[in-house]
Amino acid sequence: MPSEYRLTRRVQFYETDAAGIVHFSWYFRYMEEAEHALWREAGLSIHPPGAEIGWPRVATSFEFRRPLRFEDEFEVHLQVAEITSRTIRYTCLIAQQDTTIAKGDLTIACVLKRPGEPMKSIEIPEDVAARFR
Amino acid sequence: MPSEYRLTRRVQFYETDAAGIVHFSWYFRYMEEAEHALWREAGLSIHPPGAEIGWPRVATSFEFRRPLRFEDEFEVHLQVAEITSRTIRYTCLIAQQDTTIAKGDLTIACVLKRPGEPMKSIEIPEDVAARFR
Amino acid sequence: MPSEYRLTRRVQFYETDAAGIVHFSWYFRYMEEAEHALWREAGLSIHPPGAEIGWPRVATSFEFRRPLRFEDEFEVHLQVAEITSRTIRYTCLIAQQDTTIAKGDLTIACVLKRPGEPMKSIEIPEDVAARFR
Amino acid sequence: MPSEYRLTRRVQFYETDAAGIVHFSWYFRYMEEAEHALWREAGLSIHPPGAEIGWPRVATSFEFRRPLRFEDEFEVHLQVAEITSRTIRYTCLIAQQDTTIAKGDLTIACVLKRPGEPMKSIEIPEDVAARFR
Repeated sequence: MPSEYRLTRRVQFYETDAAGIVHFSWYFRYMEEAEHALWREAGLSIHPPGAEIGWPRVATSFEFRRPLRFEDEFEVHLQVAEITSRTIRYTCLIAQQDTTIAKGDLTIACVLKRPGEPMKSIEIPEDVAARFR
Repeated sequence: MPSEYRLTRRVQFYETDAAGIVHFSWYFRYMEEAEHALWREAGLSIHPPGAEIGWPRVATSFEFRRPLRFEDEFEVHLQVAEITSRTIRYTCLIAQQDTTIAKGDLTIACVLKRPGEPMKSIEIPEDVAARFR
Repeated sequence: MPSEYRLTRRVQFYETDAAGIVHFSWYFRYMEEAEHALWREAGLSIHPPGAEIGWPRVATSFEFRRPLRFEDEFEVHLQVAEITSRTIRYTCLIAQQDTTIAKGDLTIACVLKRPGEPMKSIEIPEDVAARFR
Repeated sequence: MPSEYRLTRRVQFYETDAAGIVHFSWYFRYMEEAEHALWREAGLSIHPPGAEIGWPRVATSFEFRRPLRFEDEFEVHLQVAEITSRTIRYTCLIAQQDTTIAKGDLTIACVLKRPGEPMKSIEIPEDVAARFR
């Protein structure tokens, strides 16, 4: 069962800003791209059509060491760091070869979504948790 | 009934790109911001919770005359140009004082959205069309 | 010399909106991704470090036929449609297998960018134009 | 001298995702909007034309308590939490009336940017630091 994913990615022009580097908000999107690719590799979709279960983000952070620029190639290395009864925590390394660009983490929770009701925290279904162990 | 809207806006840093100017994809978002503000002024939401009716975009264009840069203030002037039985077409002028920055247009259609079915074109409800005449 | 490019792409979650489909502003970014990939295939970068020449967008449009949803795979087929002395025009087809999703075009101009001066339209250098014929 | 800023903001459609809520990457942009508005209130621009000094982000985080949806109004309350010789740290509360939506922080560093050289950490100019005390 997969508990990590390595994504190779190139910086797109619309991801850069007037300082000539990737805008910091994009690192969170890069991390999420790797997360969703990990779920696909595990045979799952994090947002299948009509699903009653959702996975909102509850906490995330990034430290930025070096900038990325237009057309740079880089790797996003996502790892499942911890699975509790109701949350999954990933850690993420963004790197170019042996150079660390940024380090992040992301915690998501499992919720029940019913139309017209607020989201409600629930336990992660065992068949989902088992896919990432 | 309102058939036009003027929005004053400032360029945000994340809207710029490495060429030091607003990325062209943002003009479509500026136009849409003005559209949704027009709908609110008409007492409507273009995407109310649980609505069965939706308003997908069917065609849009922009001509760009001059760039916008970080922190520039500008005006988005949106006008309802035509309402047919199934579509609404807007024209949009983006300007700084008397200087034209860009000119665009946007055509949207009225559709019925039912879970699990493809979107289906329908006639615009008369009480909606009446709000923009 | 390459005059077209086919890019295969998957819809990312952050490209969707509350209507459950890809936000229309993203099609312009998909088209631009294919453009920059075409330039790389031609041995060029559209925005090399320190360049005095730039390629601002002067006009663009899209017609939307069918929506794209989270995790859909699709193809972006970009073609150089016309090269004039100062502009390049591309046409773009976004499709899933034989189904047209959207059709667009994009015209860019060649400009001289000098710090502190407005951008100035210039003729496309022959060695650049030759790459796309 | 201003050391905090309160920004009132409405959720735009393009900020939502297929889960029907604001995509988490947007909270970082909301925080940055408030930061740049604070700098303007202090009589500064964080990215003036031609500046040799820049302010890259070195670390940031957010905790998400409740979702925001299309057209929700909310407040972004940014505070300067700490100024060291080379960094500024902000804390950020995103709220609707008395309800906390999210809490974040952001640390930026002062750097010298010279064309063709890597960014180099420098001390914050005293006249800048003084504006936020």
